[in-house]
Amino acid sequence: MSEFIESGHAASPTGWRAATAACGIKYAGRDDLALLVSDTPASAAAIFTTNKVKAAPVRYDMALIQRNAGGLRAVTINAGNANACTGPAGDAAVLAMARATEQALGLEPESVFVMSTGTIGVPMPVEKITAGIAVAATRLSAEAGVAAARAIMTTDTRPKHCAARVALPDGSLITIGGMAKGAGMIHPNMATMLSVVTTDAAVHPALLDRALRAAADRSFNSISIDGDTSTNDTLVVLANGAAGAPAIVDAASPAFAAFQAGLLAVCQRLAQAVVRDGEGATRFVTITVRGAVSDADARLAAMTIARSPLVKTALYGADPNWGRVLCAIGYSGAEVEPDRVVLHFGGLRVLEGGLPLPFDERAASDRLNVPEVEIDADLGLGTGEATVWTCDLGPDYITINAEYRT
Amino acid sequence: MSEFIESGHAASPTGWRAATAACGIKYAGRDDLALLVSDTPASAAAIFTTNKVKAAPVRYDMALIQRNAGGLRAVTINAGNANACTGPAGDAAVLAMARATEQALGLEPESVFVMSTGTIGVPMPVEKITAGIAVAATRLSAEAGVAAARAIMTTDTRPKHCAARVALPDGSLITIGGMAKGAGMIHPNMATMLSVVTTDAAVHPALLDRALRAAADRSFNSISIDGDTSTNDTLVVLANGAAGAPAIVDAASPAFAAFQAGLLAVCQRLAQAVVRDGEGATRFVTITVRGAVSDADARLAAMTIARSPLVKTALYGADPNWGRVLCAIGYSGAEVEPDRVVLHFGGLRVLEGGLPLPFDERAASDRLNVPEVEIDADLGLGTGEATVWTCDLGPDYITINAEYRT
Repeated sequence: MSEFIESGHAASPTGWRAATAACGIKYAGRDDLALLVSDTPASAAAIFTTNKVKAAPVRYDMALIQRNAGGLRAVTINAGNANACTGPAGDAAVLAMARATEQALGLEPESVFVMSTGTIGVPMPVEKITAGIAVAATRLSAEAGVAAARAIMTTDTRPKHCAARVALPDGSLITIGGMAKGAGMIHPNMATMLSVVTTDAAVHPALLDRALRAAADRSFNSISIDGDTSTNDTLVVLANGAAGAPAIVDAASPAFAAFQAGLLAVCQRLAQAVVRDGEGATRFVTITVRGAVSDADARLAAMTIARSPLVKTALYGADPNWGRVLCAIGYSGAEVEPDRVVLHFGGLRVLEGGLPLPFDERAASDRLNVPEVEIDADLGLGTGEATVWTCDLGPDYITINAEYRT
Repeated sequence: MSEFIESGHAASPTGWRAATAACGIKYAGRDDLALLVSDTPASAAAIFTTNKVKAAPVRYDMALIQRNAGGLRAVTINAGNANACTGPAGDAAVLAMARATEQALGLEPESVFVMSTGTIGVPMPVEKITAGIAVAATRLSAEAGVAAARAIMTTDTRPKHCAARVALPDGSLITIGGMAKGAGMIHPNMATMLSVVTTDAAVHPALLDRALRAAADRSFNSISIDGDTSTNDTLVVLANGAAGAPAIVDAASPAFAAFQAGLLAVCQRLAQAVVRDGEGATRFVTITVRGAVSDADARLAAMTIARSPLVKTALYGADPNWGRVLCAIGYSGAEVEPDRVVLHFGGLRVLEGGLPLPFDERAASDRLNVPEVEIDADLGLGTGEATVWTCDLGPDYITINAEYRT
């Protein structure tokens, strides 16, 4: 059983502190650097972008987590520069960020995870960042988790953070916290999506990895904003055991199941917060496909609906244009027999047995002209099911992205 | 050798006539029905949407072309209603359109190809359409090809038509004409893209099919506007032999090669016209990927760039944000080693060996702030190459699609 803590954040779990600083990397008058630090070594697991063009910090972290999944102490994150396509100087910059953090906090070598988000192909202002790290290291507190979530924003309009308290079967309590930044280039596997999840549970790295992959599939890998997959996407979970609960070492244990459920709840809340704050988004859309021949097919159909520009612009216009949804299912590659599809749009049954049902256009449009919309497609073929989340596509997406850099 | 005819169209080849009528299907005060008629039976080949949800006319034509690829006489096309997701009544409507055309023109049964474009899921106003067919049948002329291209428009802003004269190796001249409608839902395999290509060459149906597939790969299947693949896409070519040139029956003959080249030229011009008139488009973008491990890989990378909303919004904003191009290549699935990529954006070399080259941002933006832009990526891995065409993504795309139906 898990329960969200009001205004919880990545420093909510025991033994975690956060700090921020203003390095002036790109943004004026705001913090653009965040540290998350554990008082004791944490086990870690991470999922990285599938993009073959990987940013320097992604390459660094992929190697780090291979070598030291049992002993991480801190995460250093900057916003404004992605440190991608920056060549050997980019690799040196990651190393400098890690070393500066280790030095400022007196940590062991190779104990710092590094994340960057922002523009691609711009040299990193390394000295500004290491100076910021030195400042942030003096400001660590358990109250700075929300500020940290704010410092990693780029085109995000609000910080994304949460924390949940989870009761393990033996009665002990653990806390799982987290923060994320998103906004654009959001598509599974992953998005320009950085997310750090912290916990004071004690979890073996292999189990942590297993729990993270399962949670990611039903959260960060089930959202789409624009179908672009960035060079920097990273989701990391760190478990420091400071809650004092018994270590979770058995994948078949009720404790692992409870931890898994709590982790999923935190990841889903963060992922949904990313969608709600999608660039230019005015509606949060939940798409469920059921009755598919397999869960994979259901997911394929649901994600194809979620990324269709025609579906997304119709949602922006509150147009109950369900034909575009059926069309997207048709080209998704999923098994479909149009004559068996039952489609609900905004709670209204609009299609059954391949035939449109009559409905009042105005009333249907009013049902869609709300902040949260549901699309439900039953393919009538099997028991496969998937739910994904997306947002509508409005003119502000274009304004934001046509002007992001210049 | 082929040469375009000024203001050529689908009725330019010998023995072809066109006509239009206003049925009032959806649009007021304009023609919305087109007929293309051959004086003699024409051999035919066609390519249809890969969407599993196929409109009624697509299902009808797929069966028709199996049965009668040697003896088609006419194509009947309506705009305003796609006759998709319309159930058994939709099938009856296609049949009624075909029969009405056959009757009005005194043609044999099963000699009429039917195409529809417009909104999905709305019952066809069959009587309005058959009445229009009867009117159009009295108006056939070799001059009405441009009017026909205009009658099949939906959100298109201008008609798309052309014709080329092709000299065969034996000195005889043939003509290949065509028209297309496009605008939204444009993505290969195919798009809401209807196109009819006519010719007075005599070509065996099997060779016509072979020539059409080759031409489509390098024209209609190499364009993307929004990544949606519609329920109605159809490309058909009809050859009536009225030019009197020797029949083309050998795939290894120089005559076939000449016909193939002419057909490609016509298909490319029509496909590019579709992109130039993409919904909300302000720029025509040519994307070439070379140096890939295979042509298929080059095409995968080029099409992924072409459909990236982030690349397309940057193009709209004349932002030389080449990082988004490299990012798209990275997630395309094509083999890529970032350190070997050389990237040109608007003719400017911006990336070499994985490293950004310094350039003047303002001057680079000026180079992109033009109607025709080129993106060229050399992956440095092999000899695979592909060129595709797309347009930018501007706010008008959203305005058009948020309001298309309501």
